[in-house]
Amino acid sequence: MNRTMKAVVKQDRARGAVLKEVPVPTCGAQEVLIKVKATSICGTDVHIYEWDEWSASRVKPPYVFGHEFSGEVVETGSLVKSVKVGDQVSAETHIVCGRCPQCMSGNAHICEKTEIIGVDRDGCFAEYVVLPEENIWQNEKSLPWDEASIQEPMGNAVHTVLAGETAGRTAAIIGCGPIGLMACAVAKAAGAAEVFAIDLNPYRLELAQSQGADYIVNPLENDPVQYIREKTGGRGVDIVCEMSGHPVAMNQGFKMATNGGRISILSLPVRPVEIDITNDIVFKGLTVQGITGRKMFQTWQQTAGLLRSDKMDAASIITHRFPLEDFEKGFDLMLDGKCGKVVLHP
Amino acid sequence: MNRTMKAVVKQDRARGAVLKEVPVPTCGAQEVLIKVKATSICGTDVHIYEWDEWSASRVKPPYVFGHEFSGEVVETGSLVKSVKVGDQVSAETHIVCGRCPQCMSGNAHICEKTEIIGVDRDGCFAEYVVLPEENIWQNEKSLPWDEASIQEPMGNAVHTVLAGETAGRTAAIIGCGPIGLMACAVAKAAGAAEVFAIDLNPYRLELAQSQGADYIVNPLENDPVQYIREKTGGRGVDIVCEMSGHPVAMNQGFKMATNGGRISILSLPVRPVEIDITNDIVFKGLTVQGITGRKMFQTWQQTAGLLRSDKMDAASIITHRFPLEDFEKGFDLMLDGKCGKVVLHP
Amino acid sequence: MNRTMKAVVKQDRARGAVLKEVPVPTCGAQEVLIKVKATSICGTDVHIYEWDEWSASRVKPPYVFGHEFSGEVVETGSLVKSVKVGDQVSAETHIVCGRCPQCMSGNAHICEKTEIIGVDRDGCFAEYVVLPEENIWQNEKSLPWDEASIQEPMGNAVHTVLAGETAGRTAAIIGCGPIGLMACAVAKAAGAAEVFAIDLNPYRLELAQSQGADYIVNPLENDPVQYIREKTGGRGVDIVCEMSGHPVAMNQGFKMATNGGRISILSLPVRPVEIDITNDIVFKGLTVQGITGRKMFQTWQQTAGLLRSDKMDAASIITHRFPLEDFEKGFDLMLDGKCGKVVLHP
Amino acid sequence: MNRTMKAVVKQDRARGAVLKEVPVPTCGAQEVLIKVKATSICGTDVHIYEWDEWSASRVKPPYVFGHEFSGEVVETGSLVKSVKVGDQVSAETHIVCGRCPQCMSGNAHICEKTEIIGVDRDGCFAEYVVLPEENIWQNEKSLPWDEASIQEPMGNAVHTVLAGETAGRTAAIIGCGPIGLMACAVAKAAGAAEVFAIDLNPYRLELAQSQGADYIVNPLENDPVQYIREKTGGRGVDIVCEMSGHPVAMNQGFKMATNGGRISILSLPVRPVEIDITNDIVFKGLTVQGITGRKMFQTWQQTAGLLRSDKMDAASIITHRFPLEDFEKGFDLMLDGKCGKVVLHP
Repeated sequence: MNRTMKAVVKQDRARGAVLKEVPVPTCGAQEVLIKVKATSICGTDVHIYEWDEWSASRVKPPYVFGHEFSGEVVETGSLVKSVKVGDQVSAETHIVCGRCPQCMSGNAHICEKTEIIGVDRDGCFAEYVVLPEENIWQNEKSLPWDEASIQEPMGNAVHTVLAGETAGRTAAIIGCGPIGLMACAVAKAAGAAEVFAIDLNPYRLELAQSQGADYIVNPLENDPVQYIREKTGGRGVDIVCEMSGHPVAMNQGFKMATNGGRISILSLPVRPVEIDITNDIVFKGLTVQGITGRKMFQTWQQTAGLLRSDKMDAASIITHRFPLEDFEKGFDLMLDGKCGKVVLHP
Repeated sequence: MNRTMKAVVKQDRARGAVLKEVPVPTCGAQEVLIKVKATSICGTDVHIYEWDEWSASRVKPPYVFGHEFSGEVVETGSLVKSVKVGDQVSAETHIVCGRCPQCMSGNAHICEKTEIIGVDRDGCFAEYVVLPEENIWQNEKSLPWDEASIQEPMGNAVHTVLAGETAGRTAAIIGCGPIGLMACAVAKAAGAAEVFAIDLNPYRLELAQSQGADYIVNPLENDPVQYIREKTGGRGVDIVCEMSGHPVAMNQGFKMATNGGRISILSLPVRPVEIDITNDIVFKGLTVQGITGRKMFQTWQQTAGLLRSDKMDAASIITHRFPLEDFEKGFDLMLDGKCGKVVLHP
Repeated sequence: MNRTMKAVVKQDRARGAVLKEVPVPTCGAQEVLIKVKATSICGTDVHIYEWDEWSASRVKPPYVFGHEFSGEVVETGSLVKSVKVGDQVSAETHIVCGRCPQCMSGNAHICEKTEIIGVDRDGCFAEYVVLPEENIWQNEKSLPWDEASIQEPMGNAVHTVLAGETAGRTAAIIGCGPIGLMACAVAKAAGAAEVFAIDLNPYRLELAQSQGADYIVNPLENDPVQYIREKTGGRGVDIVCEMSGHPVAMNQGFKMATNGGRISILSLPVRPVEIDITNDIVFKGLTVQGITGRKMFQTWQQTAGLLRSDKMDAASIITHRFPLEDFEKGFDLMLDGKCGKVVLHP
Repeated sequence: MNRTMKAVVKQDRARGAVLKEVPVPTCGAQEVLIKVKATSICGTDVHIYEWDEWSASRVKPPYVFGHEFSGEVVETGSLVKSVKVGDQVSAETHIVCGRCPQCMSGNAHICEKTEIIGVDRDGCFAEYVVLPEENIWQNEKSLPWDEASIQEPMGNAVHTVLAGETAGRTAAIIGCGPIGLMACAVAKAAGAAEVFAIDLNPYRLELAQSQGADYIVNPLENDPVQYIREKTGGRGVDIVCEMSGHPVAMNQGFKMATNGGRISILSLPVRPVEIDITNDIVFKGLTVQGITGRKMFQTWQQTAGLLRSDKMDAASIITHRFPLEDFEKGFDLMLDGKCGKVVLHP
């Protein structure tokens, strides 16, 4: 194997990234080395690329970023048992301690010592990536590389939508970035009666419709709360998936939920949000759920199952594909909001 | 209004039934009188028609039988508040006490004092039927009468399939009578990864496939347990819906479930069944659920929601339609197993 | 029966209340007339007594207030079936519509058309009270009147504490008014490993300890978040019951919860509260539950069961008893925070 | 460290066991070596001792048996991170694969490739035992060795009793061997309203009472179904914990459950049992749960929490203590049914 590889490196504590040759990572005794076949760009990658406040406080350049991918195993450590060379894999990006109370009770996705690939250690915007055996997810041989690479963010959508019952229920998806779009598709695939997609961006609302949303709502044109109340006989929706992070949208989310409904929040508002606890949570008997990562590995099982169900067209969510070298085109599209998922090929 | 109406009456304690003129039922202060637009035949009706052991012990001829229907409200009692003349309705067929511990904890469907329309009191194989206000289910104006009439049995399928998580999971439906067929459709509409339909009757297996089953298994040709193990990487299915009532099939159901899976039993075996508790329930950590009726009224909400979701084609499950007068044709088809749902029009 | 009775009447749109003779209420066909044996004072009654903003916007003097009680049935309406003269009863104070989606899915406690006795219609600070049959809760003959009268607020505590698993888990109760005190007792009775009681009032903290709290924390002396982290190996508690309504305390509640924990909010903050959604809900994978009323009637079943379990001493929560005539003494104590539950005897 | 140790060895494929010197086990890179302080005798050990059919088919003498213990860590492998010399520990006895669908979804206790210490590999009836790091459970320093040694079987009781809600509910425990006795204590500690203990053995019924059972029922004296119906107003119990394995008792269990109740089965009937599926499961809407092992590690967390709660007196369940050399006295007591837990000290 080549001892160097090309990779997109976050080189400096400033905006941007560079393509360069770096050493192929070494595979430890409990690790697996994977040749990356497809890797997709996450909103988190865009934050790192842009070097926002959060990135500046968390990541330590220079390093390889990126965390969504699919690939083929090319080497396994001496203690690895469940993965072998040639396996087609993706990976959970949360590397967890395995021994805290959360890890020891089926909640490893909220391990207090989580390390994230492409954030806290080298990632997959590269020809090769190395990962602990226990993070590996085996893909079906028949699953195309590109679709396999977006299972990680699709897992966020699945985790959010399926955090309570969905079949025959009404759902609102607030924020139609790539994960919001996938949430529309997941909700319909899981039998939601009606899905309302809400976003300010007409391009994304169109994509939401093609992903199965029954109604699209642009708050510049309609008050989402009033719109949804009208379409639901005054009752509101059973499920709200908050993926916008905007305080106004989030408060609308609370108000559009029916009594006893749930609001599952995946977004990360940049500052505290004022909530009318009394009227919007207590009197309504709402359940509010913080959603982070993917349940390890129920969410992966559900995601793979939904992909097999023929009720979702995962390929349709990928609007752009580039060679890894053209990564900047991908980041530009993401910044413009003119895309679904963008996939890079190393 | 006419003071008499035509009705299919279980006249004698013997096989058969007769069409005759009977008085239109009187509407009490807390009741609603409905003009029946469509009524469908249930397996229970066939038992009563055939006069089997169970019927002989339970029903008291002469009376009007039948319990699945849709219709229009023509009269309401003086204390009725939530239903008005002209409403398009169906109804929950379990009339419950409202005050036992089950009724008082959201489990009215297993009220110990349940009375069933068309079994314990006059039913809907007639031009009119009367029901307590609290049993009324309001239909969408846009829902066709025939589809509306089969929501009650579809509710059995919904209750069974959705008794645990379904999206992205694998399911086996054992027994493809009308409710089994609907269970195939419900499981797919709720995002099941793969649905295996099992029956001895090739006609029904074909219907199962048209309802969305991914695999059909005829135990006369393949061992269902082995077949399912092969198709699931040796693991078995997450969900088993037992709708056959056959001891052999039921035991196969336990064996085809994966460790930690669930088996939801709607069928009513005529005698006790030997179960390998140790190997098929305890070591596997299985959950076995007895399913009866429909949750009042979560199941109705889910059923109506699934009908609105565009993920199910309820009409396709109705294979035959007759005027009420030709009810015997319907019963003959049901006895032959050569039908999906059969709808009668008074 | 006497045609008039003494009652504590909210006479004017101003602070205070008066004891006066009023007509005994009439018992409708679906209603039950009860001779009140014991009635206890709720925080809501104090708001009405004090005539705060909320009361001014909601209640319509003159009327009889009060809603927690026990009593004996003296008359039943003609349609009443499940209650008879001589029954010892209490009652759910939410009068619900029975036909909205919430009522029709086991969530009547969040019916959008809820009417509350003693708030929206005449209550039980009187010799007699009338209620719909369906609100009646039958008490065990052996349950003392005083203890029976406090089941309604104890139900709030039960609903809050048992909104998720409790046995073997750690819990913090924020706010030790009467319901907070009962929450301490309920959590211990349900097997909580450790209960932390938090309040600014030393008198109430002492009561909390006598109700079983393992640790008492006065935020004037210790930072509750830091204190709890220290006592839980740095992890925080599994369960937070928010009963203070103070924004600072509520935010501490979010911070003292362990990852994956739940925060069940019964309190009613008077204005919106700023919450750090990202760090305190999303990254922690918290579940936030709005709790209102009592599940009808699972909560009543659980409350009665806990009273029978011998794991709670309900009587000990009642610190003061007065004849109805001395109601002002009770209100004074409540305003001073120098009491547990105060019971009045008409 | 001594290179040999004393151990109770299952030497031959026949009844009995011998105390002998064997080599201290070697500690692998991912393993931990523990000096055993206390070890208790399980019913499974008795089966192996007696050399019944099951043992003959499963275990491979000669080997050290025993699997319940507490001890102090004396050596850790080179890759071990979360355990250190001097730690006071017990251990989960199921060694699982970590990578099957069950292990990967929080259900490792039903891993299809489970290996059990003391059954499939050397156990803890010895001075030392070696275990994988991931099986180690850290004990509180304050927990006495003897009580710590019985957490494993207590975990079975906790897993069974807490497999659904318990607080304020009624429960029947069928079979009062050591785990049944602990189930009585767990149910009461978790707030069960009434606990009915059922056994043929008066000695055990007495112990059940001392563990908190509200009612004891000897089927030789009273029909348990009728007895329980009488004491529950004709309704039956909410929870049945089946720990007897007797077909008659198990069928009584189904009949004593209230509609909508649950029956959690931990016992292992030696042959298939006839169940009246229709009347005892389907019409009643029962849930039947197969319980095996302990949830890894929620059950251990709950068990440790209940021990800390002061609602259980774990010591009182230990009726006999012997030096390891006198193991035969312990087995004799177990065979006679004249004991609670028997603890051995190496």
